[in-house]
Amino acid sequence: MKKLIGNAVVGQSGGPTTAINATLAGVIRGVLENVHDSSIKTLYGMRNGVEGLLEENLVNLNEVFENEHNIALLENTPAAALGSCRKKLPDPAKDTEVFEKLLSIFKKYDIRYFFYIGGNDSMDTVAKLSAYTKDHDYEMRVLGIPKTIDNDLVVTDHTPGFGSAAKYIATTMLEIIRDCAVYTTKAVTIVEIMGRDAGWLTASAALGRAVFGISPDLVYLPERYFDMQAFFNDVRKALETHPNVVVAVSEGIRFADGTYVGEGTQSGATDVFGHKYLSGTGKALEIAVKNEIGCKVRSVELNISQRCAAHIASLTDISESVNVGRAAVRAASEGVTRQMMTIVRTSDSPYTTTVGHSDVSEIANKIKTVPDEFINEQGNDVTDACLAYLLPLIEGQTTVEFISGLPAHFII
Amino acid sequence: MKKLIGNAVVGQSGGPTTAINATLAGVIRGVLENVHDSSIKTLYGMRNGVEGLLEENLVNLNEVFENEHNIALLENTPAAALGSCRKKLPDPAKDTEVFEKLLSIFKKYDIRYFFYIGGNDSMDTVAKLSAYTKDHDYEMRVLGIPKTIDNDLVVTDHTPGFGSAAKYIATTMLEIIRDCAVYTTKAVTIVEIMGRDAGWLTASAALGRAVFGISPDLVYLPERYFDMQAFFNDVRKALETHPNVVVAVSEGIRFADGTYVGEGTQSGATDVFGHKYLSGTGKALEIAVKNEIGCKVRSVELNISQRCAAHIASLTDISESVNVGRAAVRAASEGVTRQMMTIVRTSDSPYTTTVGHSDVSEIANKIKTVPDEFINEQGNDVTDACLAYLLPLIEGQTTVEFISGLPAHFII
Repeated sequence: MKKLIGNAVVGQSGGPTTAINATLAGVIRGVLENVHDSSIKTLYGMRNGVEGLLEENLVNLNEVFENEHNIALLENTPAAALGSCRKKLPDPAKDTEVFEKLLSIFKKYDIRYFFYIGGNDSMDTVAKLSAYTKDHDYEMRVLGIPKTIDNDLVVTDHTPGFGSAAKYIATTMLEIIRDCAVYTTKAVTIVEIMGRDAGWLTASAALGRAVFGISPDLVYLPERYFDMQAFFNDVRKALETHPNVVVAVSEGIRFADGTYVGEGTQSGATDVFGHKYLSGTGKALEIAVKNEIGCKVRSVELNISQRCAAHIASLTDISESVNVGRAAVRAASEGVTRQMMTIVRTSDSPYTTTVGHSDVSEIANKIKTVPDEFINEQGNDVTDACLAYLLPLIEGQTTVEFISGLPAHFII
Repeated sequence: MKKLIGNAVVGQSGGPTTAINATLAGVIRGVLENVHDSSIKTLYGMRNGVEGLLEENLVNLNEVFENEHNIALLENTPAAALGSCRKKLPDPAKDTEVFEKLLSIFKKYDIRYFFYIGGNDSMDTVAKLSAYTKDHDYEMRVLGIPKTIDNDLVVTDHTPGFGSAAKYIATTMLEIIRDCAVYTTKAVTIVEIMGRDAGWLTASAALGRAVFGISPDLVYLPERYFDMQAFFNDVRKALETHPNVVVAVSEGIRFADGTYVGEGTQSGATDVFGHKYLSGTGKALEIAVKNEIGCKVRSVELNISQRCAAHIASLTDISESVNVGRAAVRAASEGVTRQMMTIVRTSDSPYTTTVGHSDVSEIANKIKTVPDEFINEQGNDVTDACLAYLLPLIEGQTTVEFISGLPAHFII
């Protein structure tokens, strides 16, 4: 493979995660390690993904990351240090303006390596850019590096960012179960978890069962239609065995007619101006249980901590996230292009993985949902096979640097 | 002081916290250390506070905690390992039945030491029980040990449990601020924090400013009336300086007419002590900002993790919580009764404390709110003096035992 000498650019796109900066750190490490090869000279960071790139809003990362301490801090910093965007590139057959602009910027900065860390939509950007530059005879190696807390990308065993979200959710569920256990009054606690189309995060709520035999009484994923009567029966049955019932539900659960559970029910509550508002999934179920069963009920939405609780990140996830970034640089320097980096599970016990890559067009715009064998027959819990798949991903704790009791983050 | 030989009972009451089990561990440690003195023979734990005591639902803690590892695990277990209750004892002048029952149980089990770990309402129980037993010539030393994440007890410098909640809130705010910073679109994120009458927890949201110069743009405590127009102006002004505005609000903020901001979204239900249930404050403000300013808005409720996120507990808080429990046993064995243990700050820099005690009747049913000098003039932030008071309380990290990536808890 011909040695391609030039500069590189890296960007972050889509919703932030706890591990997307670890992957950025991996790309930086990869470029620094690449120095002996000297094919990549300068690594630029695009601020706010392609949105910033189009405005030439670039930062020289070789200068920012002169010392190891900054890179280590970046690995433990949540969200996207370079900023993110939700920009989707147009169809190049219909609208060439954006692509012409990008090509001129690549030429101006002698960009020969393009690394894009993101989810499904970002892989679409990678596919389009690699096709466009190839068609216009501009040699640039374009690689996508996955990240998403949702774990819904195909081909890769799991996605960087997911393990840390899963660890936060499983840890928080154990703490909530302890908290709920203190009173003797019958009560139902409904915990709403992210994941609109895939139930991987909600499944993680049950991980405590594999370790301590402690998990929510009921777990509902969006992969199964939600039946309100079956739910009431499940809750009633659980209340017969102990007073504090804990339920984990995906925000994306839907009725058989396709409407979201959180969409169909109005809470009846009003704001200070008297406006009614639509409640979320947890709130909708809270009201339903209150009306139907009449016991004490509350709902808890884990919300954005699921994607940014870096203080309880998974060491496995962060290490793998660094590795996929580093491997992307190595692969690109060896000639790989138009691929998304993947994590390949090579053994279950002991858990081992390697980094691979796969044609990005096979990955973009597809969704990997939780398979049938990971969900129990009644559709109200996950199977032990599911927990066995998930468990290695939350293993290990990162070394967070605390200053005066608070975690230090790195800001570019 | 005459040596009082007999058994002891310890209970936990009121809302659980991250540190209430550390205090229980402290009482257990105190009793084990008291062995040479041999005034306390058996330490019973009452399940679900006085509620369980009335049913003689007792557990022999000497047997449960034969090994050090269990005590250490208990120190890092959130919620109330013995279970809790919200039972308020009646006025003994009007209703003696409960007190007669309790006295007979004290006699039956030869209980001469009564330790009750709880908040404001629990101190009321301590005051009534010590008065009743004294009036009935039953010698029993009755001590209250404070716990509450709200930090709203008078006399004590701060309450066990508060520092860990403050650390969780400050850490989570820093992570949320990072998460919010990734996009360039104007957006307001409203974070609702616990604290019905006192703003201590909400004030802690600003702690990042003292360490990294990073904190929410606006902080609203229940100690100031909330003015919707002033709030809109504050948000507009903040949006002029940067696109991602983060607001911390107490669940308990009220308008000048006394109505809660979140009241419109609630049923008006109250708990057994007459406290109003609140939880819609962030949601109410989210809708208000959406209607008035029209930008992207979301609200986040930190919810029960504030009182149970043991994985990010404050070492200072957990150590002090153990110490007050241990000191209570020592004080009781020395003859102290009808007192609540207190934390006395002996120096600000370096931060040092000792454990003291104070007449429980001076503490019960009073509330310590955030003082004027801790709130800025506009009523939309806290002062540096406030942060200086708070900062030592979140210092240090506990050593959590992880098994397969999840924190281990101790269940009695």
